[in-house]
Amino acid sequence: MKRVFLCAIVMLLQYCAFAQAQKPFAIVIHGGAGTIRPGMISAADEAQYKQGLQKALDTGYAVLEKGSTALDAVQAAIVVLENDSMFNAGKGAVYAANGTIELDASIMDGSNLNAGAIAGVTTIKNPIMAARKVMEQSGHVMLARHGAEMFAEQQGCDIVPQSYFWTTKRRNAYEKQNETKGKKSHLGQPGNIDEKYGTVGAVALDKQGNLAAGTSTGGMTNKKFARIGDSPIIGAGTYADNNSCAVSCTGWGEYFIRLAMAKAIADRVELLNMPVDDAAKQMIHDRLQNMGATGGVIVLDKNGNISLQFNTDGMHRAWKKSTGESGVELYKQ
Amino acid sequence: MKRVFLCAIVMLLQYCAFAQAQKPFAIVIHGGAGTIRPGMISAADEAQYKQGLQKALDTGYAVLEKGSTALDAVQAAIVVLENDSMFNAGKGAVYAANGTIELDASIMDGSNLNAGAIAGVTTIKNPIMAARKVMEQSGHVMLARHGAEMFAEQQGCDIVPQSYFWTTKRRNAYEKQNETKGKKSHLGQPGNIDEKYGTVGAVALDKQGNLAAGTSTGGMTNKKFARIGDSPIIGAGTYADNNSCAVSCTGWGEYFIRLAMAKAIADRVELLNMPVDDAAKQMIHDRLQNMGATGGVIVLDKNGNISLQFNTDGMHRAWKKSTGESGVELYKQ
Repeated sequence: MKRVFLCAIVMLLQYCAFAQAQKPFAIVIHGGAGTIRPGMISAADEAQYKQGLQKALDTGYAVLEKGSTALDAVQAAIVVLENDSMFNAGKGAVYAANGTIELDASIMDGSNLNAGAIAGVTTIKNPIMAARKVMEQSGHVMLARHGAEMFAEQQGCDIVPQSYFWTTKRRNAYEKQNETKGKKSHLGQPGNIDEKYGTVGAVALDKQGNLAAGTSTGGMTNKKFARIGDSPIIGAGTYADNNSCAVSCTGWGEYFIRLAMAKAIADRVELLNMPVDDAAKQMIHDRLQNMGATGGVIVLDKNGNISLQFNTDGMHRAWKKSTGESGVELYKQ
Repeated sequence: MKRVFLCAIVMLLQYCAFAQAQKPFAIVIHGGAGTIRPGMISAADEAQYKQGLQKALDTGYAVLEKGSTALDAVQAAIVVLENDSMFNAGKGAVYAANGTIELDASIMDGSNLNAGAIAGVTTIKNPIMAARKVMEQSGHVMLARHGAEMFAEQQGCDIVPQSYFWTTKRRNAYEKQNETKGKKSHLGQPGNIDEKYGTVGAVALDKQGNLAAGTSTGGMTNKKFARIGDSPIIGAGTYADNNSCAVSCTGWGEYFIRLAMAKAIADRVELLNMPVDDAAKQMIHDRLQNMGATGGVIVLDKNGNISLQFNTDGMHRAWKKSTGESGVELYKQ
């Protein structure tokens, strides 16, 4: 009898180990959507975008693989993209109308709906890390501008001079924009002459089954009046809830706020049991499209199902699942 | 034959006029939720709160009655509450930790999802009017702090010195708070020693069948680091969509952001066809309550159905419908 009992215990433990090993984990990232078509950039630039995405993807995936949290994976992937001057977040972000670089970021933990965000900071090297500090140490969700910087500095975040963020590419775009002032871009968005939303974001599912999402951006080229876009707004640019999905957005921020895009997708998944792909398609190709706006989203649910939707020509994106599925893409398929 | 035709036309016109006359319109307002119990304030204060609510209600209702938009009614009602020093919005708002008064507001038009918001302004007499200007004139949805002030000034909004907002009552609360620093209030919210969220808000349905919502606040007493609460966040403190309902919130802002409260209620109405009362109850008495947080909401749908829900002791509130139904209440019924 004792032997049978022991045998049952061993089988149970084996089953648990197997189930744990089989539990899917995954990460999806984006580096912005917009007028991204083959032949528009040099082969060297194309390679650099892909390398940057691959590095961020691998960094985030490695965090998940060793058993750390989705939150850590999202942060790690976004830090890589913030440090990469090819993307409009952290180093290499676009210039506001006053010639400074103003950064926004947000992060959310789907396991408990904790969230943190910062808007309009000019001295924090990695805005996503400051957003995480807001979430964990401030008792608040959202801090703005100088107040956010004071808090981040107190929390030991890396503080850098504005010149750290500067790049010739963005400076040229800013100056070109000033020349073409008043003209609207092809996307119809004032102040986005380079016709690409270079916001970065990540969503992840860890081995414990928890979801997280994060987004980081320099916002809109030539933005004025301390404009806040969707990226630091929980429910607009970022949302994560284990009961539905994790979402990060990139696009014409004003429309993403008005649609409460990330929450609208999450609610379709939670309340209607809609697959993430259907929810993302409905919000991007139907609701956003009908308003005459453009952008994209990445979505991931607790079963590892993913969706990458955009109604622009392209979206810098990459994904990697524990099932082996993986990819890095810039253009429409 | 001609006579019959004319008769039919006359009957049709009469029916249309009748239908128009019968189309319901309504306004609901709040002046904050919290530890609001009978006997806690003087009879004189109680009368002043009720008078203030009644005046705002009547002002908004008159706008609807003469056939103007829900958006105008929401703005008119909120301006009255902002100008009334009894409430935590505009004149009489609470002090931030640095001793200044920092105001947030947002407004949304349910007919087209247009929205405007400002955060952390210190010189705009009526923040809700500045939010409206952001919506209509900026091409953006959300502006912050000094940038928002510059924009509002350019748009001709009334600019006042900080001293305009000062009241002895709030100054005393601020000083008392500094004495009791570090202690948590009964509501569990740090920095809310007066245990009342005095945020104001309004939702309205006009004769054309359009919905609108708005919210205005001084935020949390003693708030630091340019904290942004839920009031200026579209989807958190405010949402309006003709396809679902109009929502304005008051409460522990961080939780309202994490739940994307206003959008969560609107989505229950839109996606599940849930009555507004069920949606509001589920979000306040189930979701918010389970997170250990407190607050309240007012909700109104296109058929004139209303819901006023709170899990605090009381909520300053008032409502008036074209059917004749009306009320002003402070305490739990």
